[in-house]
Amino acid sequence: MTENFRINLTPDDVPKNWYNILADLPLELPKPKNSEGKDQISDLQKVFTKTALEQEFATERNIKIPNEVRELYMQMGRPSPLVRARRLEEKLNTPAKIYFKREDTSPTGSHKLNSAIPQVYFAKQEGVENLTTETGAGQWGTALSLAGSLLDVDITVYMVKVSFNQKPDRKNIMNIYDGNVFASPSENTKIGREILAKTPDHPGSLGVAISEAMEEALEKDNVKYSLGSVLNHVMLHQTVIGQEIKTQLEIAEEEPDVMVACAGGGSNLAGSLFPFIKDKIDGNSDTEFIAVEPSACPTLTEGNYEYDFGDTNGFTPMLKMFTLGHDFVAPSVHAGGLRYHGMSPIVSLLVKENIINPTTAQQRDAFNAGMTFAKCEGVLPAPETTHAIKAGIDEAIKAKQTGEEKTIVVNFSGHGMLDLKGYAKFIDGSMKNC
Amino acid sequence: MTENFRINLTPDDVPKNWYNILADLPLELPKPKNSEGKDQISDLQKVFTKTALEQEFATERNIKIPNEVRELYMQMGRPSPLVRARRLEEKLNTPAKIYFKREDTSPTGSHKLNSAIPQVYFAKQEGVENLTTETGAGQWGTALSLAGSLLDVDITVYMVKVSFNQKPDRKNIMNIYDGNVFASPSENTKIGREILAKTPDHPGSLGVAISEAMEEALEKDNVKYSLGSVLNHVMLHQTVIGQEIKTQLEIAEEEPDVMVACAGGGSNLAGSLFPFIKDKIDGNSDTEFIAVEPSACPTLTEGNYEYDFGDTNGFTPMLKMFTLGHDFVAPSVHAGGLRYHGMSPIVSLLVKENIINPTTAQQRDAFNAGMTFAKCEGVLPAPETTHAIKAGIDEAIKAKQTGEEKTIVVNFSGHGMLDLKGYAKFIDGSMKNC
Repeated sequence: MTENFRINLTPDDVPKNWYNILADLPLELPKPKNSEGKDQISDLQKVFTKTALEQEFATERNIKIPNEVRELYMQMGRPSPLVRARRLEEKLNTPAKIYFKREDTSPTGSHKLNSAIPQVYFAKQEGVENLTTETGAGQWGTALSLAGSLLDVDITVYMVKVSFNQKPDRKNIMNIYDGNVFASPSENTKIGREILAKTPDHPGSLGVAISEAMEEALEKDNVKYSLGSVLNHVMLHQTVIGQEIKTQLEIAEEEPDVMVACAGGGSNLAGSLFPFIKDKIDGNSDTEFIAVEPSACPTLTEGNYEYDFGDTNGFTPMLKMFTLGHDFVAPSVHAGGLRYHGMSPIVSLLVKENIINPTTAQQRDAFNAGMTFAKCEGVLPAPETTHAIKAGIDEAIKAKQTGEEKTIVVNFSGHGMLDLKGYAKFIDGSMKNC
Repeated sequence: MTENFRINLTPDDVPKNWYNILADLPLELPKPKNSEGKDQISDLQKVFTKTALEQEFATERNIKIPNEVRELYMQMGRPSPLVRARRLEEKLNTPAKIYFKREDTSPTGSHKLNSAIPQVYFAKQEGVENLTTETGAGQWGTALSLAGSLLDVDITVYMVKVSFNQKPDRKNIMNIYDGNVFASPSENTKIGREILAKTPDHPGSLGVAISEAMEEALEKDNVKYSLGSVLNHVMLHQTVIGQEIKTQLEIAEEEPDVMVACAGGGSNLAGSLFPFIKDKIDGNSDTEFIAVEPSACPTLTEGNYEYDFGDTNGFTPMLKMFTLGHDFVAPSVHAGGLRYHGMSPIVSLLVKENIINPTTAQQRDAFNAGMTFAKCEGVLPAPETTHAIKAGIDEAIKAKQTGEEKTIVVNFSGHGMLDLKGYAKFIDGSMKNC
């Protein structure tokens, strides 16, 4: 009865620094570069805040979290609990211990607030009055809207039109936090108007939404652009997750044998795993790190490691990363947050160097794992998170076969309360396995 | 920085007993009675589990929580945190301290699981294979479905047809937890078929849904009926909330001056306040207890204290309680959980004796308070919970006017992630103030 299967930390345990893995990579990270005849890198300097760009290329191992940001982390519920999935272990009849890190306990239901708060804070410090961004599934737009509301900075979100129409609740929650949400393509921008003139019923895409959000930041004073994944400074902010897991595993007197996270642009994966990776590089740990992507968008498992654009339209500089090609269009799986053609350059390098192992899960198999998890542990995972759970369950089953008492840590990146229609399709059998 | 504004307890701090206020009431609670020519009390014995009925009339002050139930409380996230709303206090510029008890951290998003788990556990102990219930807004049906899934008991939920059609996500989440959900009136029962024969497009009502769920339990072997509010044993189970608050306030070295909860059937109110009431009855505390109901359904503030039926159709025994009349139809406010004509007989007695003070909030004012709260504290309250927040904010404003450093405790009964359409109507101005 008294075994500690939920490890809560106190607000004082929120990390005081972000961990910058750039200080510890086995190879130098290839720099972004301009595409021929364009000067996209100097455009970056116009659209991003100074602090975001400084952090993008910073080399110190530890970067101090400003007091006000740390305080907001606490007030928004950090540290998040680490919980042992004892009922799931029993159901699987495995000798493995499965822990899950509950990033769903954030008010917006995912890990995204970890980067939204500092990004808005730095913008505010620099006198920026408005931040623009794009959102697909809506998690990032929701987190940035709340951060804007907490710090009194206006937020403009370009939401892919097809998602905007399909997911009114995502727009509603952004509006509650005072986010201004536009279906993209919109009449607000030159590129939006051009697209609508040619194709009035254009369904939108993440690429178009990025272009609209960046155009606003390029053209207007006191407006900057903010991105919720892929870039180094976003990975940096997310490392509060993994640092907390470290403290929690020490309290539980556990060493992780396997750590699992899903991967779209890489932010929850980086956040949970990076603080554990130096020990592996240094030969002091043999933890296995697993990145799970949807079979429908197999960037790390089937993509090429090469320079490519971050967006569909070639508006951004080129990044060295695993990519399916910037014109790749993933099937419309429910895990909208994992439908990205590219991947964080740092995560890509670590996969290339065999430090992180990628794997894939098919949609129905992932939802099936999510259902099993919810019925055992109560909490309903987001479609993205079900991918990590599927791989975690597979590892626990392997441990049963070999009889090993492995310790498996799964990053539970978000809850599925706004994704119930996806689950309904799984249950009524109309969801495709792809 | 180091001030403890979130008080987490460990799983070991989950109470070991439920607190039975029947041992401490200032007057004897009037017993249920049969209506003329009917024998509804012996029907109760057929439809409820033995343990539920024993607890309904138990007189011991402390009733042991079975180990398996206590363990499930822990595994589903209890104890829940008590959090100080520091940003809300700053926004209101009040000397008052506002604490909120986060019952929304349950996997189903509300306090309802506190009674669902023991009710299903006792049913299972007694060999019951199926529990039936009704649900309006859906919180109770969701919690009972999850408890059924955790303990392997089949759950049948009759959901008011108009809600069933308007809120597909509520049906979806019950299905995830294996709940069998039927739109009521249904073809499953005699009364359902009779109603449909007369009025094929009948929109349903809570009264009809109760009748269908009870009919199944009356007519079938190994089927029992379960209720999520109003009755004494449900109030009993919910007292884990207030016992935890007591421990948490001791840690924070606080005495509550005001405690607030919303009231529909009374369960979250009873759960959070009852453990504090004996001290008030004994003259050892002058905490003010506030029950907040919607102006659209003013049971405690405008109803009569008299014997009335628990359901619309007069199927249940008569209970002495505040009531607007069992044929009262409340306007369709978004706080579906507060649209009940009656009230827990114990809560009613305590209001009658001026130990709990009732007040009302209008719908738009409540949502406005909910929006303010969400923008300051991040977490989005359920429509029901916004009523408690409205009254808590009013108390904090009064404290500002008088300059008193009051300690206000609000029970945050549930989150609003499945109620975003209500918020959208508030924002676009189409919500009525009633």
